[in-house]
Amino acid sequence: MRAAVMRGKKIVAADVPDPVPGPGQVLVRTLACGICGSDLHALEHADEMSRLAQESGAEGFVMDTKRDVVMGHEFCAEVLDFGPSTLRQLKPGQRVCSMPLIFSAAGPAAVGYSNDFPGGYGERMLLTEPLLLPVPDDLPTEYAALTEPMAVGAHAVAKGQPGKGDAALVVGCGPVGLAVIASLRLQGIRPIVAADFSPKRRGLAERLGADVVVDPAAEKPAAAFQKAAAGKQALVFECVGVPGVINELMRDAPRGARIVVAGVCMELDQIRPMYGINKELSVQFVLGYTPEEFAGTLRAIADGKIEVEPLVTGRVGIDGVADAFRTLRDPEAHAKILVEPGKA
Amino acid sequence: MRAAVMRGKKIVAADVPDPVPGPGQVLVRTLACGICGSDLHALEHADEMSRLAQESGAEGFVMDTKRDVVMGHEFCAEVLDFGPSTLRQLKPGQRVCSMPLIFSAAGPAAVGYSNDFPGGYGERMLLTEPLLLPVPDDLPTEYAALTEPMAVGAHAVAKGQPGKGDAALVVGCGPVGLAVIASLRLQGIRPIVAADFSPKRRGLAERLGADVVVDPAAEKPAAAFQKAAAGKQALVFECVGVPGVINELMRDAPRGARIVVAGVCMELDQIRPMYGINKELSVQFVLGYTPEEFAGTLRAIADGKIEVEPLVTGRVGIDGVADAFRTLRDPEAHAKILVEPGKA
Repeated sequence: MRAAVMRGKKIVAADVPDPVPGPGQVLVRTLACGICGSDLHALEHADEMSRLAQESGAEGFVMDTKRDVVMGHEFCAEVLDFGPSTLRQLKPGQRVCSMPLIFSAAGPAAVGYSNDFPGGYGERMLLTEPLLLPVPDDLPTEYAALTEPMAVGAHAVAKGQPGKGDAALVVGCGPVGLAVIASLRLQGIRPIVAADFSPKRRGLAERLGADVVVDPAAEKPAAAFQKAAAGKQALVFECVGVPGVINELMRDAPRGARIVVAGVCMELDQIRPMYGINKELSVQFVLGYTPEEFAGTLRAIADGKIEVEPLVTGRVGIDGVADAFRTLRDPEAHAKILVEPGKA
Repeated sequence: MRAAVMRGKKIVAADVPDPVPGPGQVLVRTLACGICGSDLHALEHADEMSRLAQESGAEGFVMDTKRDVVMGHEFCAEVLDFGPSTLRQLKPGQRVCSMPLIFSAAGPAAVGYSNDFPGGYGERMLLTEPLLLPVPDDLPTEYAALTEPMAVGAHAVAKGQPGKGDAALVVGCGPVGLAVIASLRLQGIRPIVAADFSPKRRGLAERLGADVVVDPAAEKPAAAFQKAAAGKQALVFECVGVPGVINELMRDAPRGARIVVAGVCMELDQIRPMYGINKELSVQFVLGYTPEEFAGTLRAIADGKIEVEPLVTGRVGIDGVADAFRTLRDPEAHAKILVEPGKA
């Protein structure tokens, strides 16, 4: 099949072996797959990502960069065929979403971060039958493909254990920050103060539910938060993922703030513990989502409770993936680019 | 009055002005006052401590190192006299404990970390009348003086929100770690695994309630914890307070661990966020205690529920404070040294 392949530190359009479904597995055709910021990072730091995952005891996250990897873990697909030992309750042609996780004799593996299981930047994938969620017929494919990134926001908000007296500050309005904003809005947490240097992203933050948007070049996000949310407990979301941001938020956050780290900073970082100590801050690191959060997010999108339409700012075929990776480095240009492997 | 004074970067025995109680204040005679690790740090880094406290919005923590400071905030004292606007419900001669906090026209100040309000390394102090807790007659003075450091442990444990399925790992068995162990034991959290390089401190950890003690030079604390507490949720207490320990615990902690930072690291520190992200760790920084925790700790000591007797390993008069500061840098030599300003 055709796929956009990570080969060395490049993305190339190439032919790769057709996946063949094993026991419990389902062969699907990729309809749309979002490009994630982690994929941009993986293109340059896949070895480091693998090493850190191993060191943290994360099974199933193994990439050998000497071999091909087909990335892509934010997808909507269509059932094509079933492997052995499957129940086959869904019909071929049924559109599905799934957590990007597959089980085989070798154990669990991450679809899209694996040498053995191609992700959604290829024409076909293998998925795990019990994880498949049918997509309602009237839900556009590209909205369904946003289930995965929006579930990341739902999980981050849940781990922050939001309560009635809370207000939120979201720092960074890329796809993760926007997903957090949408989930906060769904939970009724107000006001939501959102900060990003990019005017385009601030506009998206407003569309997804931010009450106040801030340009950090003009005003400290924490100061804007204090103005908008005086008297409320601060629930702060770090959605940037570059070194230094956690410490800035610790320095500026109000007393007793809970900081949820949803941004993925893969480098070594510096903090000043005294900021945390003097204000009794908590820092909750988060990753992924639960199966319930994933299914609940697809349902919320289907019910129109999360408006994902503004997020899709571009569409490319397999040949356009390499260029899309470059384009996404400019926050003004795009939010989410979808790869549609079936299109030219 | 006589006091052990921080003057420049030295502790000297000297005469300082007698404190005079203002409105709402009570004059007390210091009976015993523990030397805290933070005081050792303050002797070298008082300016930095003040600056960080200001930057974090901590009012009342201001020291000008060009002027004298009488430190000491872990005390038992005796009522001598009352200032104006006081209720005078306690009799002169009554022994009391108090949170080391005083209010004046200038706002709140930290007793023992202030140029204006001397702490317990002097013969007399001013305290706040509504904060005074009478010490039961049959409780030895030196046990009552341990209320403050033991309350630090009670607060750290409470902020960790211990639950039934939790087991604890306490890294560092100085006074803070030992207070955490005592409080964990009181809460019924088991097993308690405690780690320290010092054999003496490991012995104290056992006496205060640790089920397993580990020498980090021989075995990784997290590995010992996994052996002793398999299947339980990890509640980890960082009670060392030097750079690098938070990151080591993040690297080694099991998935989903809650790390409570009770150690006071005043320097810049490095962490690798990916350890936290991959295992969804939380890091809760803590400071001090609530009035309820402070009063509850005095009650628990008086009721014999916390055995503080092993903690007191030395006693000095005002002239011995400078030397005690030096001695305390060796973990084998001492746990808690009490200053008794009334003795030679």
